[in-house]
Amino acid sequence: MKKNNYNDKKYIERMDKWFRAANYLSVAQIYLRNNPLLKNKLTSEDVKLYPIGHWGTIPGQNFIYTHLNRVINKYDLNMFYIEGPGHGGQVMISNSYLDGSYSELYPEIKENESGLKKLFKRFSFPGGSASHAAPETPGSIHEGGELGYSLSHAVGAILDNPNIIAATIIGDGEAETGPLCSGWFSNVFINPVNDGAILPIIHLNGGKISNPTILARKTNKELSDYFSGMGWEAYFVEGDDPLKMHALMIKELDKVIEKILSIQKEARKHKAIDATMPKWPMMIVRTPKGWTCPKTWNNEAIEGSFRAHQVPLPVSALKPEHIDELEKWLLSYKPSELFDENGKILSEIKELAPIGNKRMGINPITNGGINPKELILNDWTKFALSFEKPGQIKAQDMIEFGKYLAKIIEDNPDNFRIFGPDETKSNRLYEVFKVTNRQWLAPISKTLDEWMSPVGRVIDSQLSEHQMEGFLEGYVLTGRHGFFASYESFLRVVDSMLTQHMKWLKKANELKWRNDYPSLNVIATSTAFQQDHNGYTHQDPGILGHLADKRPELIREYLPADTNTLLATMNKAFTDRNLINLIVTSKQPREQFYSIKEANEMIEKGYKIIDWASNVKTNQEPDVVIVASGVEPNLEALAAISIINKEFSNLKIRFVYVLDLLKLRTKEIDPRGISDAEFNKVFTTNKPIIFAFHGYEGLIRDIFFSRENHNLIVHGYRENGDITTSFDIRFLSQMDRFHIAQSIAKAVYKSEAKTFINKINKKMDEHTKYVREYGYDMPEILNWKWENLK
Amino acid sequence: MKKNNYNDKKYIERMDKWFRAANYLSVAQIYLRNNPLLKNKLTSEDVKLYPIGHWGTIPGQNFIYTHLNRVINKYDLNMFYIEGPGHGGQVMISNSYLDGSYSELYPEIKENESGLKKLFKRFSFPGGSASHAAPETPGSIHEGGELGYSLSHAVGAILDNPNIIAATIIGDGEAETGPLCSGWFSNVFINPVNDGAILPIIHLNGGKISNPTILARKTNKELSDYFSGMGWEAYFVEGDDPLKMHALMIKELDKVIEKILSIQKEARKHKAIDATMPKWPMMIVRTPKGWTCPKTWNNEAIEGSFRAHQVPLPVSALKPEHIDELEKWLLSYKPSELFDENGKILSEIKELAPIGNKRMGINPITNGGINPKELILNDWTKFALSFEKPGQIKAQDMIEFGKYLAKIIEDNPDNFRIFGPDETKSNRLYEVFKVTNRQWLAPISKTLDEWMSPVGRVIDSQLSEHQMEGFLEGYVLTGRHGFFASYESFLRVVDSMLTQHMKWLKKANELKWRNDYPSLNVIATSTAFQQDHNGYTHQDPGILGHLADKRPELIREYLPADTNTLLATMNKAFTDRNLINLIVTSKQPREQFYSIKEANEMIEKGYKIIDWASNVKTNQEPDVVIVASGVEPNLEALAAISIINKEFSNLKIRFVYVLDLLKLRTKEIDPRGISDAEFNKVFTTNKPIIFAFHGYEGLIRDIFFSRENHNLIVHGYRENGDITTSFDIRFLSQMDRFHIAQSIAKAVYKSEAKTFINKINKKMDEHTKYVREYGYDMPEILNWKWENLK
Repeated sequence: MKKNNYNDKKYIERMDKWFRAANYLSVAQIYLRNNPLLKNKLTSEDVKLYPIGHWGTIPGQNFIYTHLNRVINKYDLNMFYIEGPGHGGQVMISNSYLDGSYSELYPEIKENESGLKKLFKRFSFPGGSASHAAPETPGSIHEGGELGYSLSHAVGAILDNPNIIAATIIGDGEAETGPLCSGWFSNVFINPVNDGAILPIIHLNGGKISNPTILARKTNKELSDYFSGMGWEAYFVEGDDPLKMHALMIKELDKVIEKILSIQKEARKHKAIDATMPKWPMMIVRTPKGWTCPKTWNNEAIEGSFRAHQVPLPVSALKPEHIDELEKWLLSYKPSELFDENGKILSEIKELAPIGNKRMGINPITNGGINPKELILNDWTKFALSFEKPGQIKAQDMIEFGKYLAKIIEDNPDNFRIFGPDETKSNRLYEVFKVTNRQWLAPISKTLDEWMSPVGRVIDSQLSEHQMEGFLEGYVLTGRHGFFASYESFLRVVDSMLTQHMKWLKKANELKWRNDYPSLNVIATSTAFQQDHNGYTHQDPGILGHLADKRPELIREYLPADTNTLLATMNKAFTDRNLINLIVTSKQPREQFYSIKEANEMIEKGYKIIDWASNVKTNQEPDVVIVASGVEPNLEALAAISIINKEFSNLKIRFVYVLDLLKLRTKEIDPRGISDAEFNKVFTTNKPIIFAFHGYEGLIRDIFFSRENHNLIVHGYRENGDITTSFDIRFLSQMDRFHIAQSIAKAVYKSEAKTFINKINKKMDEHTKYVREYGYDMPEILNWKWENLK
Repeated sequence: MKKNNYNDKKYIERMDKWFRAANYLSVAQIYLRNNPLLKNKLTSEDVKLYPIGHWGTIPGQNFIYTHLNRVINKYDLNMFYIEGPGHGGQVMISNSYLDGSYSELYPEIKENESGLKKLFKRFSFPGGSASHAAPETPGSIHEGGELGYSLSHAVGAILDNPNIIAATIIGDGEAETGPLCSGWFSNVFINPVNDGAILPIIHLNGGKISNPTILARKTNKELSDYFSGMGWEAYFVEGDDPLKMHALMIKELDKVIEKILSIQKEARKHKAIDATMPKWPMMIVRTPKGWTCPKTWNNEAIEGSFRAHQVPLPVSALKPEHIDELEKWLLSYKPSELFDENGKILSEIKELAPIGNKRMGINPITNGGINPKELILNDWTKFALSFEKPGQIKAQDMIEFGKYLAKIIEDNPDNFRIFGPDETKSNRLYEVFKVTNRQWLAPISKTLDEWMSPVGRVIDSQLSEHQMEGFLEGYVLTGRHGFFASYESFLRVVDSMLTQHMKWLKKANELKWRNDYPSLNVIATSTAFQQDHNGYTHQDPGILGHLADKRPELIREYLPADTNTLLATMNKAFTDRNLINLIVTSKQPREQFYSIKEANEMIEKGYKIIDWASNVKTNQEPDVVIVASGVEPNLEALAAISIINKEFSNLKIRFVYVLDLLKLRTKEIDPRGISDAEFNKVFTTNKPIIFAFHGYEGLIRDIFFSRENHNLIVHGYRENGDITTSFDIRFLSQMDRFHIAQSIAKAVYKSEAKTFINKINKKMDEHTKYVREYGYDMPEILNWKWENLK
């Protein structure tokens, strides 16, 4: 590399050319289909029929990108770009085209005139490139469609990547969202020794779709206070004259980078365990929205106004009236000074790009991570529980899982993390804290705090599902492993984040050049049927239905019944790639039922006919099929079978446990679905099926709709929550042994079941009276021993 | 009312007694079942079997509540209490019991010893009172279960209530959530003339479930900067000695209240239209977590630590070992100085309560609002579109709806508002801006901004679904009307908020003393099948499935097909009470189909057999039933019928449009469901049904599962999004005329349909080629005229 003087006038002039080239490419992507270099006078033949795209955020970001390239070269940084602002798709395309990485990833887009033409045409075009920084965008790990997560993605990416800086551009629109606002507190989790750094840059362009932004109407003093209060030191770059702005940006960005490097250098003189939270720098770059586009249109301001948000000039092939204005705008960037006559970018400009993998468009961290490693997994069966008889012992699945996790943490010290919103202890992962702590760089109190340290594999000290799920996304999108555990009902807070991650996976899978990712593991615990004193607000198992709507090849839903099935599930979840695994599990003391062998069979086939709970052989046709999916459904279904066995000893019962729920779907709906033949063998084609289910019942009805046997009664969560005992919650939703036993009897014996039904009704009245009087369940229920199985 | 000296020592001593009484009641609610006044030595008989509840947040809030009562009296304020911190259920119970409002609402809980006993027992007890500030809690409009929304609820409540102050207590845990962080920007929307005020009080007690809080570890300078940056002036009250704290709180709270009153007084000298954003005060009250409980336990800190979060002392009827410690703790509040021997609170304490409706436990704003009015609705048919033939004209439903809205705004100048995340213009409600503006108190630029004013019925200038949905909740829970309109896919960001509102409605409906509420209206537009250039991230119709899981009596899902059906729907939505109405609608130019009469019939029955699109009479049995629900499904199904009619002229087709989707469910699942007889009459018992649907297909399969006719093929959103034309998005999910026509032919003619299928396949290839080449749809598709209907 030629030695550069990064501050001399020549260099700045070249940078300005890069900036103009990026702007030119970005405007052209909106408008042009022909004549990409403007060699001829622009005509309607050259303009798209429906110019689509956004301009507002682009030039400011092109400016920032240009300057980031400069500091990457000057300081030999390992940096990548997170594009927070939505609809800024051209930024990363234009800049990666200029540095050559675009053409390396898409060889059909050459660095010449025809390449330019194709590049322009495909933008925001059917089957083409997205109007956000999408999976198909070189250098992106972050999609700009749903706003709010750029900071949390950035932090997830730089954890355990000490040499990486995530330049995180945040639009002033995004800065108003809740998740982004809470993202500023991420600095309490970044260890300046072991982790990399994020460089947040708020691009304050002043306008949203049709409103001004809140931050843009604040004074610099207010902005400075706001960020300082959260532990950030704000650096301002403000103006609208490009050349003056280059000089200013060089000065401030150098300061900022030197500050980051000196923080790290200073901290790294000591051990990570001795680190404290530095005051990291952040930047506020104030440029007009749509900077460098025409100032006004129809006597209304465009540049600087929300009106620059989308397509600023109303010019198209069908409306070429003002085509001269468009031409004037495009020519203002002087393309002839930027590209040679073949359309190749001039080398004096191109040489400003960082070298090889230092180019942000191709930095390995943005494509599956730097040297991603598989997780080292100990044999899960070493942590399995053993017992002589199903139901004989009690254990807390999350406590047992914690032991398995402790070993994973020891074996994978730098690429496995646990995330949660202040719930890791409540979710009973105590054993984890024997080998690690919660990472927290803010002051720690020796007397008040527990398990906190500047170094730790657990991050859970912010009460924010958004942040924690976002951290995990950033972590797995850069090739590392972990999970996010949350109270089941509050997973719904991040419904849409999970959707967006699924969409990322879907699109990334379609790209040849994209490497794959470890799966995103989401553990739902403290579930609907366990929320006793937390009450009704904490009861919502709907995450199952939410994810079941999504692309089936990307979604798994596991409902382990006990510790062994949970361990088998997590072993699979940690191994599988490119998925969202939802695991719904229990933290309460519960009976243990399934052996290692049974758990292995379930994880392989998705379900299992449980012989010890059935009273017919597997190959015999039963009178009724009882199914359970979920911890409490399993308990209650088994108890119901026990009740029924005692009363109707001749009834032939088959019991099936379903671990991998979505395997019950047909192949037409889910490629992993079991065949009709297999399904019918298990569930019969016409015998009554009583299905005890953890979630809302519609999902089971949907699954069975496409199968032959519709003789189905589901007992799921019926949205009848309250503050009451764990058994009574099941009872209120009729997902309890009594109601299930009644359903079985009614389904088989119809009106002849009347005596039995009445008997159970009495039992139920007794229960209700008891629980309202004493506040806990009848000992008879709590001490149930499944004595009548078989 | 006796004239008080609110600052003298006597008064402060009485306040401290109130504080102690509230604390005593709050501890007793966790632990006691007998001996409520501790007249006898505490024994295991007196203690609950399973003491459940939380202590950490309680005493600090009791302290704040005590002082709010004082300023209500001193300044004659109209104030209510929003309890942000979760698990602080006892606060509002204890304080409303002390001021008498609890016993007025629950006459069975008398102000005597037996009343106290009942009060204690029912707390956090099956069928009893929740551990949060729930609907059953006097004075609450805000449930503390899911954290993050206290500020937005507060702001929603005080809009158009100029004399109300919402004292909004925010836990330092909640302060870390995204939604709450974005809530601080609410001050740009509060007009100091027309609206009331919120008084945010951060209760900085330092601990969450098992972590310290981020804000608690910041310096007061940092906190002050943080809030100042967002436009708030912070006042600090800090300490742990109750008497010193009373003096300090009196001083600071007086300043704060006087500040609010003087801001309002000053602003109200001028017109609302001339108002600007004042620097409102807010408070930070730093007290130890679990303040006044035992300092340590087992040599570990309790008071001041996360360990005080739940039940601090491990004492129960079953584990009475340390019962003396509990007794000591309870006696530390000196109950004998607080209650007479009958258990009545001493009058010197009780007289500190505000009078009548000024008591926060019974302020009318917290129970359906102050003087709630019905919405004045103009006859919607005046805004209806008329046309000679279905499909003859095009219009944009949201533009037409805007005209109807403009009239509503004029007729209801102070109790109707529109909320949205920067999307009101994008969602085409242009007409609204002819009669009103966007309310915005920050600086306004005459050249850059549009439709902004300090006074306006639209609030949409913050890009935050959380804030906007939260504002609407606060607005309707205080008896006013409005809607929240958002891009369909980003409604998923507030999935869980909608769930929590539904849960509030369910519980509130069960309470005799609760007044009812206007419905919460949620408009989904810019939907999955209309998101052309926005791309895949903007495509998610899953809100339909999400809400369909919830209590059916509280949920409505409307899919109007055009302007007239939309107007009929909104007329109903604005009239119905106590519901969540989801309306999925279109903003794009679309053909108009349904007359006023048809729309009225649909809104009444939920669906309609459309004779002009069917080729059999209504009472004739068809060969096939085509169903549509949604704007684009309607278009595509009609076009498919047109294709089929041309090809298979003898086929007897019935076309049904479904507006009120959930009416298709059975009565067993949804009390509004139509009978099997009616269902079978419309859908037949065995003829093929081809259902073109706006959402995910599982929901329709679920609905049909419980009906006789399972001969169903659904064409819905198949999660195959992309950046492409609006028609091509339908095509990618096979929810287009071509695929639907193929489904019809296959279902009826089986293998004989082959020639037709092949012909259509060719057409489809043509389409794909065309759209990939030109970037827009074949004119043949766009100009479709439904010429072959009938």
